[in-house]
Parts: sequence; C-alpha cells; structure tokens
Amino acid sequence: MSLLGKHILSCSIFDIELLQQLFSVADQLQPVSRGKKVCRILEGAVLGNLFFEASTRTRLSFDSAFMRLGGSVSNTTGEAVTSISKGESLADTSRVISGYYDILVVRHPDEQAVYEIAGATHIPVLNGGNGAGEHPTQALLDLYTVSREFKRLGKEISSSRIALVGDLRYGRTVHSLLRLLSLFQNLTIYCVSPSILPMPRELLDMAANGGHKIVETGDPKVGLKDIDLLYATRVQKERFACTETAFNYGSDFRVDQALVNAHCKPDVIVMHPLPRDSRAGANDLSDDLNQDERLAIFRQTDAGIPIRMALFASVLGVDHLIPSALRDATWYRPKYIGPNDASFYTEK
Amino acid sequence: MSLLGKHILSCSIFDIELLQQLFSVADQLQPVSRGKKVCRILEGAVLGNLFFEASTRTRLSFDSAFMRLGGSVSNTTGEAVTSISKGESLADTSRVISGYYDILVVRHPDEQAVYEIAGATHIPVLNGGNGAGEHPTQALLDLYTVSREFKRLGKEISSSRIALVGDLRYGRTVHSLLRLLSLFQNLTIYCVSPSILPMPRELLDMAANGGHKIVETGDPKVGLKDIDLLYATRVQKERFACTETAFNYGSDFRVDQALVNAHCKPDVIVMHPLPRDSRAGANDLSDDLNQDERLAIFRQTDAGIPIRMALFASVLGVDHLIPSALRDATWYRPKYIGPNDASFYTEK
Amino acid sequence: MSLLGKHILSCSIFDIELLQQLFSVADQLQPVSRGKKVCRILEGAVLGNLFFEASTRTRLSFDSAFMRLGGSVSNTTGEAVTSISKGESLADTSRVISGYYDILVVRHPDEQAVYEIAGATHIPVLNGGNGAGEHPTQALLDLYTVSREFKRLGKEISSSRIALVGDLRYGRTVHSLLRLLSLFQNLTIYCVSPSILPMPRELLDMAANGGHKIVETGDPKVGLKDIDLLYATRVQKERFACTETAFNYGSDFRVDQALVNAHCKPDVIVMHPLPRDSRAGANDLSDDLNQDERLAIFRQTDAGIPIRMALFASVLGVDHLIPSALRDATWYRPKYIGPNDASFYTEK
Repeated sequence: MSLLGKHILSCSIFDIELLQQLFSVADQLQPVSRGKKVCRILEGAVLGNLFFEASTRTRLSFDSAFMRLGGSVSNTTGEAVTSISKGESLADTSRVISGYYDILVVRHPDEQAVYEIAGATHIPVLNGGNGAGEHPTQALLDLYTVSREFKRLGKEISSSRIALVGDLRYGRTVHSLLRLLSLFQNLTIYCVSPSILPMPRELLDMAANGGHKIVETGDPKVGLKDIDLLYATRVQKERFACTETAFNYGSDFRVDQALVNAHCKPDVIVMHPLPRDSRAGANDLSDDLNQDERLAIFRQTDAGIPIRMALFASVLGVDHLIPSALRDATWYRPKYIGPNDASFYTEK
Repeated sequence: MSLLGKHILSCSIFDIELLQQLFSVADQLQPVSRGKKVCRILEGAVLGNLFFEASTRTRLSFDSAFMRLGGSVSNTTGEAVTSISKGESLADTSRVISGYYDILVVRHPDEQAVYEIAGATHIPVLNGGNGAGEHPTQALLDLYTVSREFKRLGKEISSSRIALVGDLRYGRTVHSLLRLLSLFQNLTIYCVSPSILPMPRELLDMAANGGHKIVETGDPKVGLKDIDLLYATRVQKERFACTETAFNYGSDFRVDQALVNAHCKPDVIVMHPLPRDSRAGANDLSDDLNQDERLAIFRQTDAGIPIRMALFASVLGVDHLIPSALRDATWYRPKYIGPNDASFYTEK
Repeated sequence: MSLLGKHILSCSIFDIELLQQLFSVADQLQPVSRGKKVCRILEGAVLGNLFFEASTRTRLSFDSAFMRLGGSVSNTTGEAVTSISKGESLADTSRVISGYYDILVVRHPDEQAVYEIAGATHIPVLNGGNGAGEHPTQALLDLYTVSREFKRLGKEISSSRIALVGDLRYGRTVHSLLRLLSLFQNLTIYCVSPSILPMPRELLDMAANGGHKIVETGDPKVGLKDIDLLYATRVQKERFACTETAFNYGSDFRVDQALVNAHCKPDVIVMHPLPRDSRAGANDLSDDLNQDERLAIFRQTDAGIPIRMALFASVLGVDHLIPSALRDATWYRPKYIGPNDASFYTEK
C-alpha cells in the first residue's frame, strides 16, 4: 500500500504502516519546512489550491508546503467559483480545473462535494476540510505531533493515556484524531465533555472494539493525573441555548495553568487544534500556559507544513528524491520562531 | 509578422500564418501543459494577472500556463483595485502596475478599459475578456482544438462543414470563432439559432465576403447530417421574455446523445465553450454525451493551457528556447485526467 | 548596524549609513526589477504577504519584488482572516503563520496591530502600512527616488530646497519623508498647505532641531522658484467641511503644467505618492505634466520594486550573493515602459 496517485479524502485510508511511512517523509522534510534546507523536487509542478469557502490558515499552510517543494500554487480564496453559479455541475468544474494542475487541494463547505470532485478526475485530490465531514491533514498533523512529542519524551503511543477535552460532539478534529489513535494498541482515552456534547457513540464503539479503554466523564479533573496527552478543544457557548443558565461551563472546560499544574504530570503534553479563543470567559485553552514547555500547540501547528509536504511528495511519488535534492538554504532564519518557543525546539 | 512584444487584445491581428506559428508552439508545449515535461523558459519573469471582475477559471488557466513556463504570477481576483476608487485614471493604474511586471493579463467588464490600459504601457497586455467585446484566448483555444481534432481525423479546416448552434446573438465566443474560421477557405457554416438570437449581420457579411457558404436556420436538425463540427452554446431563457410561452426552445436547442446519434456523422466533433448548464430543462449541451468520444469539450478546455503558454512564449520571444529547455517531469501523472476521457487522449 | 533579521516597522530605525547601504543594494537590483537580469537568491524562500485590508498596488509590489528574487509568495488580499473572527489573539495568529514563512509583510488598518504581530515572532516582519501610522517602504522609495534624481542632475540632498505641498496634516507619506530627509544636512523645506492642514508641530520641531530651515506657507507659489523638489499630495475636499465655500482650494493646490512652468526651475523634480485624482477639479497633481520629464512619479513608483527587493535581500542576509547570482534575462522587454517615459529612463 502506498499513497502514490491516491486521493486523500479521509483518514480511513491510513493504517499504521502508511502513517509511519508518511511521518518518516515528514521527518526528512523538517529542515525544509523551517527554511533551513531547500528541496525543489516539485519544481515545474502546479497545485490548484481550491477553497470554496474561506479558511485562511489552512489555505496558507497548503500554499507554503507546496512552494517549499519548489512547486507553484494557484489559489481561489473562498470566492464563489463563477462557472458554478451558471449551472455547471461539480463534475464539470472538477474535470475542467484538473486540466490545469498536477494536484488539487479542495476545501468545500458541503460534505459530499469533495467526493464528487474527486470522482470526476484522476488528478489527485486532497481534502482540505469538507464541512461537517473530515479534515484529514489536521488529524495527520495532530498524530504526527503526538508521535514526535512522545518520542522526545521516550514514550510510545500504544499503552499511553490520553484525555480529549471539550466539545466532543461537533469537534471534527477530535473525531478524526480518535480514529487514527485507535489504530494503535491498548490506549486509555478519557472523553471529557459537557454531558450534552459527548463523543458520538459509533466512535466510542469503534475505539472500544479496537481494545482501548474508554472513560466518559463530565469532570475535566477525572483522569488528568495519569495522562500523557491532554487534547483540548473549545466549548462554544452557542451549543447550550436555553440550558446555559443552569451550568457554568466556563469554569469547567477552561484549560489553564492552574488546572495543568494542579492535576497533570510534569511531562504531559497539551495540544489544541487552534484557533483558540483567548478572550476572558471563553471555555477554551488559556494563554497563561504560553511559557510552559508542555504546551505543544505551536509545535503542533508548525507540524502542518512537513505533514502537508510529505503528503504532496508521497502522492506525487517524489519522496524518494528528497535525500539527493536537499541543499542548505542561504538566508537568515531566527534560532526560535516565537519568543516563548520551548528551548528544545530550535530552528535546526 | 510576429507576436513579439505585441498586445493581444483582439483576434483581428491573426492571419493564417500567425495562427499556424502559434499552434506549432502550442504543440511543442503539450507535454508541459500536461505535467509530463518541465520547461522553465520564463524562470524569473513575473506576470500580473489582473482580474477587475471575477472569472475564476480563466484566471486559473492563465495562472497555470505562466507557472508551467517557470514564471511567477501575481493575482488580483476580482476585487476593486483600491487606487481606482480614489479617482486614479486607468492610464495611471496601467503605467504604475506595468513597472512591476513583464507581461499583463487584463480581464475587465468594460469593453474599452483594456484598450486604455494597453495604450498606457509598452509591457505586453493580453486581453482576458473585455465585457461584450472579445475573449481572444478562448477563440484561439477553440480554433486550436478544431485544428487538432480535424488533424487526428485526417481532415482540413478549409472546405469543412460547421454548425454553430444556440445563442448566436450575444455569444461573444461564437463571434470570435467565426472571425477566425473565416480566415480559412470554402467553409459551409450553419448558423442555427432561435430567430430572435441570430448571428449579427456584419459577421454573416464578413464570412460571405470571405467566400464561405452561410446557412441561417432555426431548426437544429438542418444540415447536421453533413457537418464535421457542431459548436454548441447555451440559449439563456432570460433572452426570450414574453415570447417564451409561444415556443419551447428547450427541446429545440438542447444538444444531447439522441440528437447527435440521430443526425450526425460518426466522426463529428462536438464542442462548447463551457460552462454548460447541466440541469434538466436547460437549453444547453447535455451531459449524456460524456462517454461519447465525439464530445471534445474537455480536450477543448485542456487546450487553453498550451495555447496560453504559446501566447506567453511568443509575445515574450522565448519560444525558440523550448526544444533545448524541455526535460522530463519526475512526478506522478495519471494515464487519463478524467474517467471518461477518450481512449486516444492519454497523458503523453 | 545592519538590517539582518530585523523587523522593519518604522523609518525611525534608519540612519544615513543604513540608507546608503540599502540604496546601494537597490542600485544593484535595478536591472532585476526591470526584468533585464535574473537573480534568484531567494529561491526556496517563502513570503507571507498578509494584507488585513485591501491595498492592491502595495500588495502587488511586494509580490513582484519577492518573486523577482526567486522566492515564492503566499497572499491574503484583504479578506478577514477567519481565525481572528473566532476570538484568536493577534499574537496567536502571528506565531501560527510565522511557522509557514521565512518573512512576513503585514498591512493592517489598526496602527498597533503590526507591533503586536512583530512582538510575537522572530520571523522578520515588514510593515506594509499600519493605518494612521507609517508606510516605511513608501518613505524609503520616495527618498531613494530623490537620491537617484538628484544624482542624475549632479545634486546632493544635503543643502537642497524642497517643497512639500498639499495635505500635510493627514498625509502619512509626507510625515515619513520629512523624518528621513531630516537625517541630511542644511535643507530648506517649504511646507505648503491649507492653513487647516499643516504639518504637525512635532515634525516641524524635529526638522528645525536637525538644523533645517522650515518655511510654512499657505501659498503654493512661495519658494517654488528655488526648489529642487516639489513633492505634491492630494488635498481631499472632505477635510474642509463647512469652510469649503469660503475658499477655493481647488485652484490653489492643484499642481499642473502652468504652475510648474511659471514658477519652477528647469531642473526641478515633481513627485507624488500616487494614486493621484486626475479628475477635473481635484486638488491634486494634474496629468497635463505627463510628457514633462521633470515629472518623476512613474520613476518613483518603479523604484518601489528595487527598494522592496533590497529590503528583502538585506533583512534575509542574501544581499552579498547578488553579484555572483545575476544573469541575463532572455525574454522581451520594451525600451520604455510607458509611452511618455523620459528619454533618459530607458530599460537598461
């Protein structure tokens, strides 16, 4: 099994071996993603980066990843594609635009659209987020981050203990992550959410059938003392409507320095898919953890570039060219990207 | 006569010799347009791809064509150009932006604007569509497609029989195509349209004066049995207003499998400028022809890349560098772009 | 002192020596900016060209400058950045996006935002205009133009006579230019504006403290006979409100051929930050000077490319690579960009 020439629409095509192959390619591309090495194995190739709805950061991340490999990128930025408003089918749009490019990234608010687009072309299509469906590159960069953080700490993913905290019902990100995590062995997974925002039953069943121990709870403190990873997501107040006055979810689902210091191990990793709502009173990850090296959120978002590069290189079959193509970059790079970046996370 | 350094604002600058030169350059660039070869003869050059109104596909096609030649592209995507809203003249805008680029593509809803812009700069300007005026790259890719399809079938354009079907009054595309076709010899051209949407008189006169036989008819079946090319365009119901109840144009001007099978030769070619309205009841090209190899619409839209590349290379005078610059691409390409692509249309 | 790795947020970091270094780099890049030479010293590097408000021309100019150095550019074009609307802090946005790029250009309508963004990253940030604040690349290209024009005429900036004409109160451009000019010696500066739109007091004091002679006047003809440079800006009628009927500022603050011929020396230079309002009755620079070689406005705007290239090269520390990286471009370039370009300003 390989990614060569494949559409990447869902995480469900990945098994452990394919993930390891992908992460190995991503590891090779780390210095390229940080501008320390140049690797133009896609010089001459053109990406159609097609955003049928705005998602600035995801778009920019795909942009940069393809450019870092020497390729050129042509963008739509969320505008209505004008031909579609004239009654054109998605199949026609797909086939026409496929004639321009070597690979497509598609972000579309409708869950089915990316499947229609991919069904009408043999040019590889990468799903950049399909509404309530999936966002596979986010899930892959999440797991890649877990893998790298655990390796740094001398841990394995199998047999680890993980808390997924926040809105587990609507959070597309945690659904995909749980699917990927379930490929490993013997996990203990705490699903921590307000009772009306639980992890969907089919996902819980899937994980349990995979031999993992699942604990559902509404109390964020349950289980925190043992965990290796706390993956936080935002609880959006809009989800509560009339019951909002009954509970104060704000204090329960805010992940901050006090919570982590009081309940977590010194080597826990805190992740979040971002953006986080940093405003006071938000049921979200606080920014008072910014100087805590356990906070891995920026290492996590940085991981999006090597993962997306690895996907492009693997799908287009140029990953074997990386070692001979790497050369030193000649321009200035800072030692750290962010003033609060962890000391172990220098720009190598 | 050559295209070197010229503005390409109208099809009227082309004669047969210039078309043949251009198509010969496009033929050389076919494998580059399909990502099978790399040809970076414009590495270092920068295109200003200036869309004063949105036209996603045309914009993306110019994008890709320039990038495939190794150049870089800077885009506006239909936003208002902010300086113009401050009272700046188009001449100033043109001269200022010309200082940034080696070549400009301009799409503007106002018919005169592209002439004002071109008049204020010696940097070559390509017209990407000027309102009710022209869309010369569309006309050129149409004729290039006819030329390639006929060559494949052992036919010549001169002395061939062609039906232009649909809205011939407002269809900018068929007007430009008729102008270019009239450069050839001894054509028989059926102009098939609702009586209120005829081909304009001056274009009919021009074709007749060129020695071509013109047949105007309101019946799509007239002449179909002899034709080598059926060029369909959409009939927009909005054009009919109060007379709509009198006729049912829907059944008359829909080009579908039944019509083509019943009336056309086995080696007819069916083209359409796209987008087509695939919805039921549209007076347009049906998608039930998608698996019929006579349907050339995607070969036609694919031809936009090599034609636009050939224009860039010819206007910028680097076309002679192509043979020595071609090298094999190293990335994956599918055998066919679309699942229904004709068997003879593989990705060579 | 060097620009290596620095944020360029304000003109205040520049001294004479740094300006001379920057202008020397810009001079080396002149043939690259005009497409006569290729110099791909940033091949592999990626710029995030982040426009939080639309400013088409400034954006395109940064685009082209980075591309001319071989780099790739990823753009936002004034759209709302979607993550920010979800409550994300600018610091988070900055740190996340910094993980994608080697350098950032930021245009933001809020004066403080670019400082918040720069404070959250060690990836160099260039200010592309921060609301009522500064637009340092405009000021640098203005001064670079003065420097080149004076050199052509055998003049020095120090001891020259300069008129700043128009809205001196709200004109961000003239404020920054006055700061930079004040670094030189012994200037005579006429500040010519409607009385309600004067140059701010602190800027006048700064210039006076630098030993320069300042003359404030409401009469555009005062001092014109001696000046080496007339820098015009628009007087926006909206600024006058109820007093508009009292005065006719239109005739006073329009800079046209009649004014320049009647009052200025044959070797005066006329500049303007553009866009100018060319419509009849605008209190702005007239286009009847377009064929007058003293009008330097297009030489001025053209200077934006080499200046921005020089900033990129200097901040990223690749300026020393220029001499060995220069090679001839192979594509067509016209002798002049604009039909009215001065005879001495050919495309060398």
